[in-house]
Amino acid sequence: MWVVCSDLEGVFVPEVWINVAKKTGISELKLTTRDIRDYDELMKYRLKILKERNIKIQDLQSVIATIEPLEGAKAFIDWLKEITRPVIVSDTFVEFADPLMAQLGRPFLLCHSLEIAEDGTIINYHLRQPDPKKMTVQAFKSLKYNVIAFGDSYNDISMLKEADIGILYCPPQNVIDDYPEFPVARNYDELRELLVPHIL
Amino acid sequence: MWVVCSDLEGVFVPEVWINVAKKTGISELKLTTRDIRDYDELMKYRLKILKERNIKIQDLQSVIATIEPLEGAKAFIDWLKEITRPVIVSDTFVEFADPLMAQLGRPFLLCHSLEIAEDGTIINYHLRQPDPKKMTVQAFKSLKYNVIAFGDSYNDISMLKEADIGILYCPPQNVIDDYPEFPVARNYDELRELLVPHIL
Repeated sequence: MWVVCSDLEGVFVPEVWINVAKKTGISELKLTTRDIRDYDELMKYRLKILKERNIKIQDLQSVIATIEPLEGAKAFIDWLKEITRPVIVSDTFVEFADPLMAQLGRPFLLCHSLEIAEDGTIINYHLRQPDPKKMTVQAFKSLKYNVIAFGDSYNDISMLKEADIGILYCPPQNVIDDYPEFPVARNYDELRELLVPHIL
Repeated sequence: MWVVCSDLEGVFVPEVWINVAKKTGISELKLTTRDIRDYDELMKYRLKILKERNIKIQDLQSVIATIEPLEGAKAFIDWLKEITRPVIVSDTFVEFADPLMAQLGRPFLLCHSLEIAEDGTIINYHLRQPDPKKMTVQAFKSLKYNVIAFGDSYNDISMLKEADIGILYCPPQNVIDDYPEFPVARNYDELRELLVPHIL
């Protein structure tokens, strides 16, 4: 039996921070793990920018509420739920993800959390553990599941490597170049074709 | 952050085998883990009965398709999905659970699988691993989640003990007598009251 672990942003929803940057007009927030591989470094930078601009959790949430999942994402997740056990493993925070999860039919999501002051200031962020994507694959392996994982970027690579089968989904060219060992799917139909021989 | 692990039968859906026994008129199939604590022993007994009576997977599935979840179960699971991460951990088999899962909005389910011949004869069953409920709690603890677990019967006890918080849901009196250390909820409202102080 299989568990299918997947990334969230760039796979089922647009990059949240890029959209926040667009809506707020703060271009520094456009950077993602595609640009800075170290997530801790990236998040500290983001929180510094937010503090400087006095942007609170309410402001971020109202922006995120206007983001829609990628076209076909909910149908794809619904299909996965029917035939296997999908788990979304994301470096986002529960406080950000909720309006997107509601639109996706609330699939099972493992991610991080924020520490927020009463006035809505984001004080800090709490990563659940180091390398959570890889650890998630290991956890399901400990439950004697086989694991397929897919994601689009550098922070997914340890998950793809740890899984029995790893797939790059709509990755940028630099990720393809750096990790030519993984098959690439460029839309949900191609992803279905790569998954079906294993899980059906 | 919390993960909420729960049993399926007796908590969200009626006992499947009892319903199968009623519909097929085979009273020997009424026994559950409430009667025989050793699940392996119980399943071997069930498969023996099915073979003797020439009952195939199609027959079982058509009976299971007529079973409805317990009243309020889907609403309760939907509520859990909104505020935390529910995982149903069951000793049922994916081949049995599917029509019930569809009615419950396809929550995340970890369970076992059957080995079925081409003509629908159930050849064998495959338990994913020994003590899967306890192992599931351990897996989510390895992901740095706190775990609340609830269930109704003996096969849930190792899960309840391994969890940070264990709750008995609608247990029979012998389970309450044997494990007085766990709080008891007798309906979803009481269960909500026990969960809310931790996960909200």
